[in-house]
Amino acid sequence: MCQLLAMNANTPTDIVFSFDGFRRRGGLTDCHSDGFGIAFFEDNACRLLQDTTPCATSPFADMVKKCPIRSTNIIAHIRRATQGQISLANTHPFIREAWGKYWLFAHNGNLKNFAPPQGIFFQPVGKTDSETAFCYLLERLRQQFDDCPNDEILFSALCKICTEIRQYGLFNCVISNGEVLFAHCGSLVHYIIRQAPFGVASLSDNDISIDFAQETTPQDKVAVIATLPLTHNERWQQLAINQSVLFKNGEIVYQQVPENPQYPSVEMGLNMARQAV
Amino acid sequence: MCQLLAMNANTPTDIVFSFDGFRRRGGLTDCHSDGFGIAFFEDNACRLLQDTTPCATSPFADMVKKCPIRSTNIIAHIRRATQGQISLANTHPFIREAWGKYWLFAHNGNLKNFAPPQGIFFQPVGKTDSETAFCYLLERLRQQFDDCPNDEILFSALCKICTEIRQYGLFNCVISNGEVLFAHCGSLVHYIIRQAPFGVASLSDNDISIDFAQETTPQDKVAVIATLPLTHNERWQQLAINQSVLFKNGEIVYQQVPENPQYPSVEMGLNMARQAV
Repeated sequence: MCQLLAMNANTPTDIVFSFDGFRRRGGLTDCHSDGFGIAFFEDNACRLLQDTTPCATSPFADMVKKCPIRSTNIIAHIRRATQGQISLANTHPFIREAWGKYWLFAHNGNLKNFAPPQGIFFQPVGKTDSETAFCYLLERLRQQFDDCPNDEILFSALCKICTEIRQYGLFNCVISNGEVLFAHCGSLVHYIIRQAPFGVASLSDNDISIDFAQETTPQDKVAVIATLPLTHNERWQQLAINQSVLFKNGEIVYQQVPENPQYPSVEMGLNMARQAV
Repeated sequence: MCQLLAMNANTPTDIVFSFDGFRRRGGLTDCHSDGFGIAFFEDNACRLLQDTTPCATSPFADMVKKCPIRSTNIIAHIRRATQGQISLANTHPFIREAWGKYWLFAHNGNLKNFAPPQGIFFQPVGKTDSETAFCYLLERLRQQFDDCPNDEILFSALCKICTEIRQYGLFNCVISNGEVLFAHCGSLVHYIIRQAPFGVASLSDNDISIDFAQETTPQDKVAVIATLPLTHNERWQQLAINQSVLFKNGEIVYQQVPENPQYPSVEMGLNMARQAV
């Protein structure tokens, strides 16, 4: 299994604080030590840092703190390999270009017997169910739309494709094109929207606190999405199983909640992940 | 204008020595200080380090030495912006996936009024003539071939497309899919193939020497391609204007030399670049 971290903000924001806690789960406070990746949209470009060594100790992960990159959309992933060996080609997030935009994707879960027909536009390079799902997802979008659809149509199309993919197993994912960030929950996804009045946040995985009031302006809105909450003194929201959300400018702009929403406990959610392997 | 550096080898090799000289041209010994990029194939995956700050001093360029990455195919580029502002989206090398392989591309030159029809498979994200040329080139290949062609057919197709693109201006480029490395010369491209018996090489841009005999095995073959020679005590070969070469396993496997080959002096070559702006 793996863990996801993502950010969507209305102003370029660095992820140093959140990543500081998250990376420790990659080999120190948790066992997701089969590599990591973090990708930052910088305007319409992407900067991708990845490694096959544990995130907690990788010099490429050190760069996040050493050169704080301000971004409005970030996706990060720490891996515990289920399908595909430990290699750079199997390391999330994955990136492709469609309609002249870059798209980033990371997945937490496990798909079984998911073997869609070979894509015309996108094909996986590595050997993971995750990259296969990403390519299938973009392929479906690209075949359906000659131009990039607007946010509403994009959200609706993504929901539909996720519903299809999750028939094959556990599927938590985050996707961004640098403007919006889509999250789909298959078991455990949490988020928090930090906005004025900002307060002090303390990491769960490290003895570090930050006073966001000192770091922000009153207009800032920053949504942070993570498999499990990263701080212990803030109120994180949980997505229901099969809930999808589209974030833009640090807010939820579209969401689809199942009729009878189920919110598994952390223990139940982690059990779902174990059973999915 | 810009400068190119590339490597194709029969065994995973680090580029620390060559890059050490090359990066100094990005703001110290020369004026190519509008960003840089270096991409390494690691098996079938790519690791890309880029920055919009001068290569000579960028902490992302420091990583090349700090974490020496062994690769069989590497492409690097230092930029002096001609078209497109200084931004990450305009920074080479560019990357795309075609037929389940990643492709890397970097360009030195300047194309004028090059506006091919919008691609079905590939579209530029940034605003450079270079990325436009790369997308056009891959688009032509992808439209022509349902599967990745073999080396001979690929080389012939690339030569044809380069002949077409260079009608629009100065076009030196390198392309790799992780197996082969293609180079096309529009003005200045040099290369050296290092193989047994290995000797001592001394950088032109820095007071550093290396005894490759200590670093290699007798079977190693490493082709290094660069706009201008990086060492002053080795015999670099020059490509003729309009010459194309395909490197594989550190050797030339295909080449196309013009009927009356012209080898401009460095001064003439640099003048061609100045006039192309």
